[in-house]
Amino acid sequence: MNAPFSPAAPAARDALLAALKFDGAGLIPAIAQQHDTGEVLMMAWMNAASVAETLTTGRVCYYSRSRKALWRKGESSGQVQHLIDLRLDCDGDTLLLLVDQQGVACHTGRRNCFYRAIRDDALVNIAEPLMDPEALYRK
Amino acid sequence: MNAPFSPAAPAARDALLAALKFDGAGLIPAIAQQHDTGEVLMMAWMNAASVAETLTTGRVCYYSRSRKALWRKGESSGQVQHLIDLRLDCDGDTLLLLVDQQGVACHTGRRNCFYRAIRDDALVNIAEPLMDPEALYRK
Repeated sequence: MNAPFSPAAPAARDALLAALKFDGAGLIPAIAQQHDTGEVLMMAWMNAASVAETLTTGRVCYYSRSRKALWRKGESSGQVQHLIDLRLDCDGDTLLLLVDQQGVACHTGRRNCFYRAIRDDALVNIAEPLMDPEALYRK
Repeated sequence: MNAPFSPAAPAARDALLAALKFDGAGLIPAIAQQHDTGEVLMMAWMNAASVAETLTTGRVCYYSRSRKALWRKGESSGQVQHLIDLRLDCDGDTLLLLVDQQGVACHTGRRNCFYRAIRDDALVNIAEPLMDPEALYRK
């Protein structure tokens, strides 16, 4: 699955879109996983247009619920996700994106977003930023 | 993180619950990942009670949106998930559960739920059931 990206055939893209069960807001959750290490990077939301664009360009595009607009991952931060494979679950209501993450996935500068956990008797950060979050969004 | 499970301290459990951002239905998405292989097994939903129970018992409990009830994973199928670690993302609106999955995670008898993908010009199944789904729910 590590071959260079080629756009999905229109028939396959349409078959996939027809199999998706979007929620009442027209969205579906998408889990991004680094394709070679298995690291779960983040979870975000997609709409039909962002799924179609991602399958066409090979660059992951989400839907930002706060901005109510397509969100081409990395468009502000430069931390782009290249699509390796897109998988659909049994119920058709969740996507798993195998990606190649450039730099860091998290807006805090951490490699992945899941850095808070219980250790001993407290909720703590278990990973440190690899990049300065100020620098990520200054450009 | 592979030590035997011990229940979360009440203070830590309460700190985690206070950091969670549940949606309008009182739910939060939870990604289950096999702790040692990195395989993403499934995505389901939790409410506050299911998070608290999971942190207390060490056995993963979701909330079933269709049954509108707590769903102790494996209660019908026997395919239990033991909690290894529970992580919260930067925004507090998604959980990542590192688990030890007994048997198969998917109700179709497949190890994980993400078995549909585009190959060539079609949407196809890329994994086969390891168990007969009829047998899973007959007991």
